Amino acid sequence: MNREEILEAVKEAMPEKRFIHTLGVEKTALELAEHYDIDAKQTSTAALLHDYAKYVDKEAMMAIMVEQKMDPKLFTYNQELWHAPVGAFLAKEKFGVEDEAVLQAIACHTTGNAAMSTLDKIIYLADYTEPNRSFPGVYKARRLSFDSLDAAMLFALANTITFLITKRQPIFPDTFEAYNYFARLQIEGEV
Amino acid sequence: MNREEILEAVKEAMPEKRFIHTLGVEKTALELAEHYDIDAKQTSTAALLHDYAKYVDKEAMMAIMVEQKMDPKLFTYNQELWHAPVGAFLAKEKFGVEDEAVLQAIACHTTGNAAMSTLDKIIYLADYTEPNRSFPGVYKARRLSFDSLDAAMLFALANTITFLITKRQPIFPDTFEAYNYFARLQIEGEV
Repeated sequence: MNREEILEAVKEAMPEKRFIHTLGVEKTALELAEHYDIDAKQTSTAALLHDYAKYVDKEAMMAIMVEQKMDPKLFTYNQELWHAPVGAFLAKEKFGVEDEAVLQAIACHTTGNAAMSTLDKIIYLADYTEPNRSFPGVYKARRLSFDSLDAAMLFALANTITFLITKRQPIFPDTFEAYNYFARLQIEGEV
Repeated sequence: MNREEILEAVKEAMPEKRFIHTLGVEKTALELAEHYDIDAKQTSTAALLHDYAKYVDKEAMMAIMVEQKMDPKLFTYNQELWHAPVGAFLAKEKFGVEDEAVLQAIACHTTGNAAMSTLDKIIYLADYTEPNRSFPGVYKARRLSFDSLDAAMLFALANTITFLITKRQPIFPDTFEAYNYFARLQIEGEV
């Protein structure tokens, strides 16, 4: 599928506001991809499809998660997390995406993890900082993204975990492991 | 060993300020123990010995941790965490404490975990709220401790993790798991 075909299917799968967000993620991700010398086609595909599964209904998501033997921990955490791995599955199934790097970037765009590739970080951070986002710290997150993906990831994860804690929400272990990973990089002077 | 003998040994093992803190922990822990109907002798022993290993030197702690096959993850986290499991070992070795409930309360007083007993929570919270402690939220933590140990644990863990994140420190997995455990209890209406 080419970009136009993907765009059309994505537009149909979500409300307008979410589609505008998706275009924002693609724009920011492509800027970061150019800055960090990452393939534009991979970046665009991952960005456009990252939220494709966001409006799949709960039962359909659960069926896919069971059938595909996804991490059973997911069931015990906020449903909000499910669309990322389910989205990666649908990218392959419905859009014929075979590129593991693209699928992985979609799969981990919500939780992060301790073994993120450059493309994974770009999609995660573009989702966090795209032009329609507005929250305390978004300007700093945007600036950091172009200075150092690792420093920006640490900033984003620290903010996200702190926010979840103020709401007394459980935190998915991958997110916490990602935070620890980037915190250690900074302590070791590699961020 | 009786209380007076323990007190003397503990006093010798630490600076005066830490000894005063230890007495504060014992006082608060005994109040909580009475409130929650927990054995006073167990509580007093755990409280008096909880920081016994705080001033053992790094190499001696490492030797004990290796020899006793303690969780190797500990080595990769802040040294500040080591005195708790090392303290439990010394409570048994030097003070002849055989009561597993007491040893466990000493061992988890710094990190917490997702399977804390009532005594474990009492020692953790007494350490957090004893009269010499002064930090934003300490009054709330004190009040919550007598309302609900689980609610107080959630409050203490949320504050502690948030504080560690502002300092960009890695967080020991047990602490995270403890937070998730108590956050779920609250969501399920059990806190």
